[in-house]
Amino acid sequence: MDFFYVLDMLGTLAFAISGALTARYKKFDLFGAAVIAFVTAIGGGTLRDVLIGELPVGWLKQGDYLWVIVTGITLTFFWGRYLEKMRHTLHLFDTIGIAVFTLIGLEKTLAAGLSAPVAIIMGTVSAVFGGVIRDTLSNETPLIFQRDIYATACLAGGALYAVLIYLAFTPLTAAVAMVATIMAIRILAIRYRWRLPQA
Amino acid sequence: MDFFYVLDMLGTLAFAISGALTARYKKFDLFGAAVIAFVTAIGGGTLRDVLIGELPVGWLKQGDYLWVIVTGITLTFFWGRYLEKMRHTLHLFDTIGIAVFTLIGLEKTLAAGLSAPVAIIMGTVSAVFGGVIRDTLSNETPLIFQRDIYATACLAGGALYAVLIYLAFTPLTAAVAMVATIMAIRILAIRYRWRLPQA
Amino acid sequence: MDFFYVLDMLGTLAFAISGALTARYKKFDLFGAAVIAFVTAIGGGTLRDVLIGELPVGWLKQGDYLWVIVTGITLTFFWGRYLEKMRHTLHLFDTIGIAVFTLIGLEKTLAAGLSAPVAIIMGTVSAVFGGVIRDTLSNETPLIFQRDIYATACLAGGALYAVLIYLAFTPLTAAVAMVATIMAIRILAIRYRWRLPQA
Repeated sequence: MDFFYVLDMLGTLAFAISGALTARYKKFDLFGAAVIAFVTAIGGGTLRDVLIGELPVGWLKQGDYLWVIVTGITLTFFWGRYLEKMRHTLHLFDTIGIAVFTLIGLEKTLAAGLSAPVAIIMGTVSAVFGGVIRDTLSNETPLIFQRDIYATACLAGGALYAVLIYLAFTPLTAAVAMVATIMAIRILAIRYRWRLPQA
Repeated sequence: MDFFYVLDMLGTLAFAISGALTARYKKFDLFGAAVIAFVTAIGGGTLRDVLIGELPVGWLKQGDYLWVIVTGITLTFFWGRYLEKMRHTLHLFDTIGIAVFTLIGLEKTLAAGLSAPVAIIMGTVSAVFGGVIRDTLSNETPLIFQRDIYATACLAGGALYAVLIYLAFTPLTAAVAMVATIMAIRILAIRYRWRLPQA
Repeated sequence: MDFFYVLDMLGTLAFAISGALTARYKKFDLFGAAVIAFVTAIGGGTLRDVLIGELPVGWLKQGDYLWVIVTGITLTFFWGRYLEKMRHTLHLFDTIGIAVFTLIGLEKTLAAGLSAPVAIIMGTVSAVFGGVIRDTLSNETPLIFQRDIYATACLAGGALYAVLIYLAFTPLTAAVAMVATIMAIRILAIRYRWRLPQA
């Protein structure tokens, strides 16, 4: 899992930077920015760990997350203006993060003995709820409720993973297909402005 | 408990529809509507399960909730306009839901070995916090903080249950009296516009 | 720990009153005020207990918190106008509360076998997240994200505690030094209008 570990850390870094940039835009102070960077990066995985009962939650036990997030906050504090110009690179890392977080969430939920539909939902929660908590704490209506297809990409990728495992493909094949699907849908959705219908 | 099971599912359906209708009104997309329907229906019970340590939380283990909520979302997506005209029926289901959720929350908390006052609070949390989380995620001040007596109905019903059990009535008698009390207070409160004093 | 117990209860009372006064200002009804008083007083400790897996959360098992908070709500309901004039005394209790909550959170996290950096963060979460949840539920941007140095005081005090323990000072010495540091930074920050830089 070393390869996925690197992707996980890249995703965490991208999420932390995106959170810190949001805080910068909202004119929060350094502490506010740190909290927003943290909840963006680990909010989804934390909610998943709490709901499935994997306590203490992952980032408390695995120190790497902490230092990656602190790095993201520091980078944004000193080079925020420069990072804002790197939007495209950050966006790529962010998309990688979403795909990898969905995968990790799905596998952790299955490992906890829960059903495939629940695992698909928990994978998606892992990927998107950090952003939902970030927006809620910033007193905004969560962006993802209004115009974004990326949660749907996670649900579709998760469902594909479950089907491939059911058809006896190896977990690695299923994981790669899933991550590729989520990234492809996300990128196509942005290019062609796909949207979900309104409720 | 088959009878209470049916009431629980009816309540869950009513809460999911009420959440999806809120999302419709806020012009959320389908994913946003699904999240709001979910948190409205299972938010209160989820918070209770987390606080008392019953993990994984109930709806992850009991698949029925998932499908009832998906049904509620689907119904609202296709027949939302029609459902809005059925307000009175939905309101009845909703009132049933509140009463039954209070009962389930109270019994689960007592079963976890916690005290009666805590159980009354956790019963009320089960019934009302789904709506609080719905409003918070929708970037609204929770309705229930400003003008509604239904949380008070839950507290009163829960207290009655505790007193009846203390007086050695059977759990079934206490449960029926509690559910009837909550429904009666709720209906009277709406008819006669009862309100709590301001803080 | 009797002395810290008294400080804990004083802090809880101060937090509950501060929550109830906020609700009064927002024109919430009595139920809304009770919820806001509760989450202000026990929100931080509850989040900490959930994240580190100490379930059921503390205030469900330890009835004293419940009654202290109910006392705070009752006092504010009947003598809110008078309490608002006692701002300075309340502010002192509040500062005591922050320092003691940081200490308790830090010690509980270390006792759960987690690392010192995580314990410093969880101590700060214990002290400040009640206010963050209060502001979020009241549909406000959390005050602490914008202009307040008190979370930073908690982090500094927590770090000092960890260093003193590492240097083999007794827990009591470290605790007293920590509480004194947090209170001193807080009081100086208010007097000299210290602020963190913006993100």
